[in-house]
Amino acid sequence: VNRGFNFAKLRLGIIGGGQLGRLIALEAKRMGLFVTILDPDQNAPAAQIADRQIVADLYSNAGLDALVSQSDVTTFEIEHVDTTTLQNLAERGHTIHPSPQLMQQIQNKYVQKRLLQQHGIAVPELHDVVDVEDIALLGFPVVQKAKLGGYDGRGVVVLKSRADLDKRLDGESFIEQAVAIDKELAVMVARNAQGEIRCYPVAEMLFDERVNICDSVIVPARIPDAIAANATAIARRAIEVLQGVGIFGVELFLTTDGTILINEIAPRPHNSGHYTLEACATSQFEQIIRAVADLPLGSTRLYAPAVMVNLLGEQGYSGKPVLEGVDAALAIDEVTLHLYGKAVTRPFRKMGHITVLGETVAEALARAMQAKELIKVKGDQPL
Amino acid sequence: VNRGFNFAKLRLGIIGGGQLGRLIALEAKRMGLFVTILDPDQNAPAAQIADRQIVADLYSNAGLDALVSQSDVTTFEIEHVDTTTLQNLAERGHTIHPSPQLMQQIQNKYVQKRLLQQHGIAVPELHDVVDVEDIALLGFPVVQKAKLGGYDGRGVVVLKSRADLDKRLDGESFIEQAVAIDKELAVMVARNAQGEIRCYPVAEMLFDERVNICDSVIVPARIPDAIAANATAIARRAIEVLQGVGIFGVELFLTTDGTILINEIAPRPHNSGHYTLEACATSQFEQIIRAVADLPLGSTRLYAPAVMVNLLGEQGYSGKPVLEGVDAALAIDEVTLHLYGKAVTRPFRKMGHITVLGETVAEALARAMQAKELIKVKGDQPL
Repeated sequence: VNRGFNFAKLRLGIIGGGQLGRLIALEAKRMGLFVTILDPDQNAPAAQIADRQIVADLYSNAGLDALVSQSDVTTFEIEHVDTTTLQNLAERGHTIHPSPQLMQQIQNKYVQKRLLQQHGIAVPELHDVVDVEDIALLGFPVVQKAKLGGYDGRGVVVLKSRADLDKRLDGESFIEQAVAIDKELAVMVARNAQGEIRCYPVAEMLFDERVNICDSVIVPARIPDAIAANATAIARRAIEVLQGVGIFGVELFLTTDGTILINEIAPRPHNSGHYTLEACATSQFEQIIRAVADLPLGSTRLYAPAVMVNLLGEQGYSGKPVLEGVDAALAIDEVTLHLYGKAVTRPFRKMGHITVLGETVAEALARAMQAKELIKVKGDQPL
Repeated sequence: VNRGFNFAKLRLGIIGGGQLGRLIALEAKRMGLFVTILDPDQNAPAAQIADRQIVADLYSNAGLDALVSQSDVTTFEIEHVDTTTLQNLAERGHTIHPSPQLMQQIQNKYVQKRLLQQHGIAVPELHDVVDVEDIALLGFPVVQKAKLGGYDGRGVVVLKSRADLDKRLDGESFIEQAVAIDKELAVMVARNAQGEIRCYPVAEMLFDERVNICDSVIVPARIPDAIAANATAIARRAIEVLQGVGIFGVELFLTTDGTILINEIAPRPHNSGHYTLEACATSQFEQIIRAVADLPLGSTRLYAPAVMVNLLGEQGYSGKPVLEGVDAALAIDEVTLHLYGKAVTRPFRKMGHITVLGETVAEALARAMQAKELIKVKGDQPL
């Protein structure tokens, strides 16, 4: 264990330089750590915060080696990485959390779900797709998912009938029962190498139906206490059985008949946990640092109800971001703005987010919806 | 006014690169701003966060010109700067808040207090020191203060009797009545160019008597509501009459007879407001950005009672900082750690701080005192 090290010299490595890496890096800098990131883009969001950058691809053997060798502890902001190289580095004694083996299992959504099933954790019924006829095995409608690489609505398609088969995904995929969803929930779970676990309050995720991207997150979720307790217990158990070390976004379906199924697990900070920066005693971005550096986990106490709204690039614009309405939105009480420093906007690209707190969920939600109407991320190039 | 600008391109300049500049820079980066600092030390705490640094002295004409010219709006993390150069830059149309004129008045503690008196705001009785005999004019004990450059207990001496005259300060100074102090309080006040004002809760400051450095801060202050309301009204009025734009730490004496006097005003973020990062809807470091960029001010709502404890360099050590007890301290709930990235420790140097929250002031205070006993900033060179 690392306990007893000189904290003032701790070097944190982050694989990936997107907004999640940026938000980890900001918390790490606040705590005085030395931060190195791996990302091919020299102007990546996290590159603007980190002390040092290894400019290389996340599948680059040399890049991963350099990052891990120059860091006391290395973690991930993204799961789409070369886990074989990392496995070798871990075997040579480097500290990498979550373990490359677990990352390999989780990055393949089909393997991830089969693993959860093996541990008795409920997931939607699923089936491997070996040839096109397999897509019909669970009937229609059915959800087809890419095994690897999907995110933010990509790599997922709903096929309503056989007539939709021409919309099917190419590449390795599986199908999943299209369950009747009441709400999509998420629970952030942190676990350190000592096995200490802390769960955050259950969050309710709302999606932009046009592109199936998480649009806003409401905390606490507007569900009965018993459902929340059940969701928390399932999320906790999933991370326990996987023996994950780090922070995990456990996405859940609450079905119309009140069943809770795990949709998928993100082995890193997660969009549904952004609100923790303002609303909780310990943010998810500090918590991952504590977890992977083998420090005690922090309190997940919620100080006030919170609503997070993603600032997605407006349709019809690309080019350099042009923000509108920031002044009007900031005139609303308890609105906190995050911008990720992305050089270029695109329709529906995650450019930043706001967190809005209130005395009640209703107050936070009303303020958030008002702020969302006001802030627009346009670009200097109309499409 | 700046309202209507493209927030995504806003360039913030900060005069000074110490921990206050670092904490402003972290909030500015979170909001996506481009941050330039002016500081002679290339490894200054804020230099580790900023996008760009002008490496020059705070009295360098060329340095100040470069900083201000490359920034849309410039502010201060320290008041000991060349205000004449800044006055010229402001007259040429550059946006600098607080105004260089006010900074010049405030940086001279004698001028500052006479100005407050002229506006009918109560301060301890004071007298200019032209020659040594003037020191006796208010009797003994008396407090002698340097007019310029004092901070963290420097530039202040208590003379108990004529026999102490050989301990007197050299240079320009004044004397002040040694009032009987019940508590030292502080109120952070933000004001923007529109005249909008927001006050934070009244904080109670505790000092390390050995060196007269602020040691910890308790919020809300343990005083009757009527006293708190009075303290807030006085602090608010002081910033109103000064027409200050930015954030101001108004230090107050609550005397044993229940009178409130202004001790001094810091025209920048202040140690007594560090707790706002964790405990309030808008931190003092975001609030200064809002104020100087002419944005609406943020809510100062307090989510939970808070205690801030400075992490001062341990006596007996210098050299590179060696942190002890971080893991034990972080095992206490609701403890947040800040380290400033200073390369070298010295006895009583401010190396970082912790903020501790709780359900009650008593709980936060108990946790803070426990954490304070555990964390030690030693150095690799024993003195």
